Amino acid sequence: MKAEIISIGTELLLGHVVNTNSAFLSRELAALGVEVYHHVTVGDNPERLVDAIKQAEQRVDLIVLSGGLGPTEDDITKKTLANYLDVDLILHEETENKIITYHKNSDFNMPENNQLQALIFADSRPLTNDTGLAVGMMLTQNNRHYALLPGPPDELEPMVENYLKEEIVKHILDEQVLVSRVMRFFGLTEAQLAEKIQDIVVNQSNPTVAVYANDGEITVRITAKAENEEQGNEAIDEIEKDIMEILPDYFFGYGDKRLADVIKDMLNERSLTITAAESLTGGAFLSDLTSDLSAGSILEGGLITYSADKKNKVLKVTKETINKFGVVSPECAIEMAEKSRAMFDADIGVGLTGVAGPSSLKDQIPGTVYIGIAYKDKQSFSKHFHFGYKRNRNRRLAVQNALELVRRVLKDMPIENTIFYGEDKK
Amino acid sequence: MKAEIISIGTELLLGHVVNTNSAFLSRELAALGVEVYHHVTVGDNPERLVDAIKQAEQRVDLIVLSGGLGPTEDDITKKTLANYLDVDLILHEETENKIITYHKNSDFNMPENNQLQALIFADSRPLTNDTGLAVGMMLTQNNRHYALLPGPPDELEPMVENYLKEEIVKHILDEQVLVSRVMRFFGLTEAQLAEKIQDIVVNQSNPTVAVYANDGEITVRITAKAENEEQGNEAIDEIEKDIMEILPDYFFGYGDKRLADVIKDMLNERSLTITAAESLTGGAFLSDLTSDLSAGSILEGGLITYSADKKNKVLKVTKETINKFGVVSPECAIEMAEKSRAMFDADIGVGLTGVAGPSSLKDQIPGTVYIGIAYKDKQSFSKHFHFGYKRNRNRRLAVQNALELVRRVLKDMPIENTIFYGEDKK
Repeated sequence: MKAEIISIGTELLLGHVVNTNSAFLSRELAALGVEVYHHVTVGDNPERLVDAIKQAEQRVDLIVLSGGLGPTEDDITKKTLANYLDVDLILHEETENKIITYHKNSDFNMPENNQLQALIFADSRPLTNDTGLAVGMMLTQNNRHYALLPGPPDELEPMVENYLKEEIVKHILDEQVLVSRVMRFFGLTEAQLAEKIQDIVVNQSNPTVAVYANDGEITVRITAKAENEEQGNEAIDEIEKDIMEILPDYFFGYGDKRLADVIKDMLNERSLTITAAESLTGGAFLSDLTSDLSAGSILEGGLITYSADKKNKVLKVTKETINKFGVVSPECAIEMAEKSRAMFDADIGVGLTGVAGPSSLKDQIPGTVYIGIAYKDKQSFSKHFHFGYKRNRNRRLAVQNALELVRRVLKDMPIENTIFYGEDKK
Repeated sequence: MKAEIISIGTELLLGHVVNTNSAFLSRELAALGVEVYHHVTVGDNPERLVDAIKQAEQRVDLIVLSGGLGPTEDDITKKTLANYLDVDLILHEETENKIITYHKNSDFNMPENNQLQALIFADSRPLTNDTGLAVGMMLTQNNRHYALLPGPPDELEPMVENYLKEEIVKHILDEQVLVSRVMRFFGLTEAQLAEKIQDIVVNQSNPTVAVYANDGEITVRITAKAENEEQGNEAIDEIEKDIMEILPDYFFGYGDKRLADVIKDMLNERSLTITAAESLTGGAFLSDLTSDLSAGSILEGGLITYSADKKNKVLKVTKETINKFGVVSPECAIEMAEKSRAMFDADIGVGLTGVAGPSSLKDQIPGTVYIGIAYKDKQSFSKHFHFGYKRNRNRRLAVQNALELVRRVLKDMPIENTIFYGEDKK
């Protein structure tokens, strides 16, 4: 099965909006085993849209169109296609009711042409829009399939995930269900991970296995087409087992949950609280942990101590530590962890200190980072990292590796290259 | 003049990479008055690439190709085009020397096919790659122009900015120079700003005026084609004057500098230091101010106090304030600003408190935010905001509006809806 993705919108051709839909749709279609050889973008121009569709019809079985389903004059996709394919536009009552209800509950008057968003092709299968008003649809004509999707990614993505994929699997690929699972990894690069599981990726056509990098974290998505959900999950379980045998140490969770989310869940489950004293990361670690819900239950506060003076005066890191070992040292990282833990009555204290770069700090080269961890009655420790010369990359890597250290401590997993320090409190 | 953008890369068709080049190139070409009606993406497949080029030749004068200039087998663009256009590939010595020097200075052995990156078409004009190895080029054949650019955005973007635009202006548009200026605004939406300067935007063809939104900040780019730089700048000055007459209050700076950068510059110039006590923003304000160079000179540290208990115990906000007015109050915001300022010996203290949402806090609805400012001997004040229901948007807006408040205070600009509090220190 081959597909082509046509994006419609003058704003794309002016560069006002980056087209993320094509990449998203390509990933989703690849997971179904559908091949994509062309992305095409045209403006809000019926003639050029029809030309693009004609061309796609010569190349593929499934044409996915995104954009142009809204209520304004510019939204030409439905009208243009209805004319071209010679199909009637009829009212989709469910969507019409939704539009009326939406406007009743808001202060806005409903513009008359808002109803345009409720029109669908006769004999098409509507695709529900969970996050917006314009209904999507799938039409099959002469063995060729046309999917019409809204342009805004926050409407298109849920429509694809929740309705289009099922539609494709059931009605086009004649399979029963599609099951997919995302596994998340940290601590190696996308290339390293891909190489390690290369045999699994290459030898699989169902389930498919795809590797993506996302801001330092790596995701592996396993997608199975199957008779029923149980069978799909069984097939995925097998692949997951094979992957886990190769990469047990780097796996940290499933689905959408990023490392920070996994830590938050672990802390919540165990009723633990966390705090940090940040130097090179300047608030980024704490900001990550508070960027979502439920932060109040795991965090009462934390500290940014950029200068040596405030590390001593506010955080109470001893002058002895600062003078003897320097602020970029395992000793300072551990003391920052311990003192912040005491100051904020937390179960876990994290100290982050280092040279973000690009210039060196005293003898320390950029990218030198020490992260200290103080956890309840366990012996505090520090771990040394060396990342590189890019300042913001160093800050990000410091935050992520601090989160990973917390995860390993909470799971009692081994941690390499730690520097222990101070009394064993046990 | 019409152009078409062809992106080459199987990674784009698999959705592994989002295509940002097409939007970037479209913006740059629009600024030159060049119209773009199609974006097309094909994989690393010579046949489909040639088909795309043939089609573009029927539609436009300038074909911009991105991707496929690297040293691997997949990098088909140069070889495919050389065959198709029947031109010779010759060695570009400057690039060859650069590649040799690069490998001498690194530990890597130079792979033999690395030299492929130094090949250009005979009679083409090379485009220097300031941030990578693969040279770009511009070829004119039968009055049609072909620009070949590298795929990685961090190589393509400087090549376009520094070389391709000049090439287009001088050799294709027969103009002498291209001058452009970016103005930055905060405090209104893209739509509001666009409406206010609509007459200027619509009536201009040279200079062109384009409005973009970028994460809460709005940029206006003015681009002039002119005989020489002076003439170009004069034309831009005039437009800038017109815009400033309409929007004096929202303008905060030029070029790439974001609001946080402008604040950092202002603080550095005046030798002032800043700190903050953050509640709902959880470190995001301080993280923004430390995300770039030179943070050490303007910031010694700061505090995150999420819980009421730590606002009192660590930051020393009085129990009276917390009990009488609540933690989400102008009084608490001001006290957070003043106490953090004292704790970190800073010239400016900022207090951020509010309900990030999505759930309410006591009687306060999500999006309710108070920002307090304590600045030297001036009277401290607080400003009330109401943003909305989206948690992370509320956090971001709180950070940006706090930065804007600091800018206004430093510039002695009027601030509306402030709540004054406490003694006048003068």
